[in-house]
Amino acid sequence: MQSSPFTKTYQSSQCHARCGTLTTLHGVIETPVFMPVGTQATVKGMTPETLEELGAQIILGNTYHLYIRPGHELIHQLGGLHRFMHWNKPILTDSGGFQIFSLQELTTISEEGAAFRSHLDGSPLFLSPEDAIAVQEALGSDIMMALDTCIPYPASREEAARATALTNRWAKRCRQAQPETGQLLFGIVQGGMYTDLRLAAMEELHDIGFDGYALGGLSVGEPKEEMLAILAACAHHLPAKHARYLMGVGTPEDLVEGVFHGIDMFDCVMPTRNARNGMLFTSQGRVVIKNACFQKDASPLDPCCTCYTCRHYSRAYLRHLFQSREILAYQLNTIHNLHYYISLMAAMREAIQQDRFLAFRSEFYQQRGNQEPGH
Amino acid sequence: MQSSPFTKTYQSSQCHARCGTLTTLHGVIETPVFMPVGTQATVKGMTPETLEELGAQIILGNTYHLYIRPGHELIHQLGGLHRFMHWNKPILTDSGGFQIFSLQELTTISEEGAAFRSHLDGSPLFLSPEDAIAVQEALGSDIMMALDTCIPYPASREEAARATALTNRWAKRCRQAQPETGQLLFGIVQGGMYTDLRLAAMEELHDIGFDGYALGGLSVGEPKEEMLAILAACAHHLPAKHARYLMGVGTPEDLVEGVFHGIDMFDCVMPTRNARNGMLFTSQGRVVIKNACFQKDASPLDPCCTCYTCRHYSRAYLRHLFQSREILAYQLNTIHNLHYYISLMAAMREAIQQDRFLAFRSEFYQQRGNQEPGH
Repeated sequence: MQSSPFTKTYQSSQCHARCGTLTTLHGVIETPVFMPVGTQATVKGMTPETLEELGAQIILGNTYHLYIRPGHELIHQLGGLHRFMHWNKPILTDSGGFQIFSLQELTTISEEGAAFRSHLDGSPLFLSPEDAIAVQEALGSDIMMALDTCIPYPASREEAARATALTNRWAKRCRQAQPETGQLLFGIVQGGMYTDLRLAAMEELHDIGFDGYALGGLSVGEPKEEMLAILAACAHHLPAKHARYLMGVGTPEDLVEGVFHGIDMFDCVMPTRNARNGMLFTSQGRVVIKNACFQKDASPLDPCCTCYTCRHYSRAYLRHLFQSREILAYQLNTIHNLHYYISLMAAMREAIQQDRFLAFRSEFYQQRGNQEPGH
Repeated sequence: MQSSPFTKTYQSSQCHARCGTLTTLHGVIETPVFMPVGTQATVKGMTPETLEELGAQIILGNTYHLYIRPGHELIHQLGGLHRFMHWNKPILTDSGGFQIFSLQELTTISEEGAAFRSHLDGSPLFLSPEDAIAVQEALGSDIMMALDTCIPYPASREEAARATALTNRWAKRCRQAQPETGQLLFGIVQGGMYTDLRLAAMEELHDIGFDGYALGGLSVGEPKEEMLAILAACAHHLPAKHARYLMGVGTPEDLVEGVFHGIDMFDCVMPTRNARNGMLFTSQGRVVIKNACFQKDASPLDPCCTCYTCRHYSRAYLRHLFQSREILAYQLNTIHNLHYYISLMAAMREAIQQDRFLAFRSEFYQQRGNQEPGH
């Protein structure tokens, strides 16, 4: 088994929260970290320079989307994804499994891999675990994800067990196909809403040996309490010497709970997608910018926020841009929401380093007038 | 008559081209200048900081659009258009005349003013010359334009004469309504395609006395040769001690011809709108970025260009973004096209200062393989 690219630097004495560093080909990431999603070789509306100013350390690219358009071979010919999109910090690529799973009616899963159809032109495509690795190798991502099968919610125990076993067999094939390029490979723990299946899957994946471990198949429609219960039961059992990644989750509250339970890495479309829909995260909770009450509001979106948008623009202007469907609305809103997420992670890292994470968590919920989840 | 805020600094010995400075409440503009269009209190896809980096000295705001949404009174309450949109350099606002004219079926022109309907909700609205000034005063623009009536193309001589006479009566009322705020007011020369009407209108406007003079009602559907003929016959007769503004024009070639004939100021949606449609201006001519030939093209859009887009991205990436309808496509394309226009103006200023404008003009056409218009 290879040595871990992850180094734990602080461990909360109060809970499972921890800080660490993850070393990749394009630099070292401080964890806990949030990864903005750059589906089609761009984080929508952001230049790489703006992302850097926001403090983004690593972004996520979607293998499925890049495979379909413009194609991984083209990106490889043009020097890889980093060069293609002018981003020189780390990139994590997902395996494509989640997107293929989202196209359920168009997808047939076999032992060999996933047969599916392009959402763009319906052309038939096939992705084996080895293909998923080859595509990610061509993209040149710093962190590759093993191809997994997602388990729908709800799913019977039998259904979940079968899919989890297949995911683990694919994980082994991915591990065997991992190139010697220095690109890291993470395994994905499935198991649906069955804790024992997840704990068993975790052990199998640990035996195979990956550079990091992810919890997959959450935020797929289950009630929030079920997601939090799986998180509480499983996160701290992920191998402690490796980076732990909670895939596709979630709200600011989810990030706080994830860190509380020992998660190091997160990604989610929520800050960027909600920004484009005019839903903004603030220290006082969510703001829907199109609301008439903001029409004449000269104050900044969040008086406590130091982002570019809050430093220079009023709620009235942001509402005007949004109502007018101006491109700048998407830019300014995305800057704000990403700043909110990235700053939240930085504040959590600081709280862990000062060994006051529980106090941070209480204050976080108090400030928002929310109930702290039981623990 | 007030003294001119325009100072001529260089006069070509070869033609009517000239350099100058125009002093406004928000600073001094070097002419000849191109003004990017910021219709709805934003130049689409650009932050003010990006515009400044591109070298934009002044932008144009559309009175009609801002009057309809969010309303000039709201903008006034919020500290004026500069503060509202976070742009601290000069702003020129048009009078709304051109947009009202574009809504022809919805508009009734009388001596008193223009009755029209909102393009957003159909509500009935009315704008007199005095209203147009009051709206622009509330917006706080540096340069206000007198309310004019546009003349459709083609128009009979009688029709053109009638509309021009009304424009001039309105111009006088605008001048009388000009506030003592230091905001400049420009008169607009109409006259359709009739040179003698335009020359007569010019004299009448000069007698009223404005801070600058514009040629309006061009690029309204007439053949390019007619536009150039009017430009050649009229531009250098605009009062030489004042800034001369060619409204809503045009292509890069039009800018070169405008400067050649003595124009100081230009605005046009072409660089920004074409950018969003994937049509890009380069030193070798126009590029339609969606073309399949750019699919694997690793070279920059314009190898001679120093803009942010050309420094960091390939044609293949720009094509991918455009095909994927990514917001970043609009941003990167707009940066490039505005850089092209703004750099072209800077190059013309330099050529005039070196008294080599005719050589510049010949090289401009040679480089593009275009025929130089006769002069």
